[in-house]
Amino acid sequence: MLHLASRTDPRWVARVSVDLDELLIDHAHCEKKAASTAVSLLFRYPERGVLLAPLSSLAREELAHFELLLSHLERRGVAFRRLRPSPYAGKLLSAVRPEEPSRLLDTLLCLSLIEARSCERMQLLAEGLADSSLRGLYEELLASEARHHRTYVELAEEIGSLASVRSRLEELAGWEAAVLAGVPKMARMHA
Amino acid sequence: MLHLASRTDPRWVARVSVDLDELLIDHAHCEKKAASTAVSLLFRYPERGVLLAPLSSLAREELAHFELLLSHLERRGVAFRRLRPSPYAGKLLSAVRPEEPSRLLDTLLCLSLIEARSCERMQLLAEGLADSSLRGLYEELLASEARHHRTYVELAEEIGSLASVRSRLEELAGWEAAVLAGVPKMARMHA
Repeated sequence: MLHLASRTDPRWVARVSVDLDELLIDHAHCEKKAASTAVSLLFRYPERGVLLAPLSSLAREELAHFELLLSHLERRGVAFRRLRPSPYAGKLLSAVRPEEPSRLLDTLLCLSLIEARSCERMQLLAEGLADSSLRGLYEELLASEARHHRTYVELAEEIGSLASVRSRLEELAGWEAAVLAGVPKMARMHA
Repeated sequence: MLHLASRTDPRWVARVSVDLDELLIDHAHCEKKAASTAVSLLFRYPERGVLLAPLSSLAREELAHFELLLSHLERRGVAFRRLRPSPYAGKLLSAVRPEEPSRLLDTLLCLSLIEARSCERMQLLAEGLADSSLRGLYEELLASEARHHRTYVELAEEIGSLASVRSRLEELAGWEAAVLAGVPKMARMHA
């Protein structure tokens, strides 16, 4: 259902739990970045009427999650700060073809894969973290994050044929798994 | 209360009513731009913890308004499209001083003035438009837009002293009035 071509090793939770504060800061950055990417598509494709309201609504949800992460950081006494991001998203998006409408189609599918990977990992955190307040946070986030990857696939289906979306999604899922396997191990959502 | 140094001529409503569809498209762009500007500040000032949640929440509200404008455009059978923006905001923001923290202070105060001007004009539209559905839209928007300019002033007061905020706001309000008086007359929120 998540269209991912690889499964995160369940030991990932133990690995990132070593620096949970940094993981939470990274996750807050991810939500902010997801919102800003959706907003940037509103600027790039104003004439694609079918995309606008869903992308705007998705950006609002990501911002609400950013605020939720900030409140958890505050409760832990951790200040939000700049963090070196995982090279994952940049590398994944390097597969986007330059000509339209392929560029838009690929962008939507890459964003769908990023959301799917986040969703898979949030599930692992919701089940595997020792801290019950953080398990609760991830259960709460999962409910809406699980919709986002499908939203992006559905938007892609407004741009390309069902068959072209399906085959390109499969290709990009393979690339996503390869990219993820190659990024350095850090306390990051996508590392 | 709005800190504006000039008052919009009440005949402005009649002038922009000649091309109401274009005004609504421009207004939708303004809401989108307001959201993206607030989000961009989250990226520029991650270490300014006090700004983050308020800016994120403000961006969410602007996006909700963008979606509301889109739904009104759809009801009118008008497609959203690119539009040449008024030079107002760009010109206003050219007064921002380059060194921090003045840069941040001035940016927040300019954004406060843009919000205040929007608020003043939404009030005129809520009172003066012939179309009752659009009057309703502007009454609805006003309730939250009226808070935004105060939010930006309050955030500025977290950065500079009350006295410095007050005197700079007065200077910038004079500049805003001059900029607005000088932009070409078009069916725009800020023209």
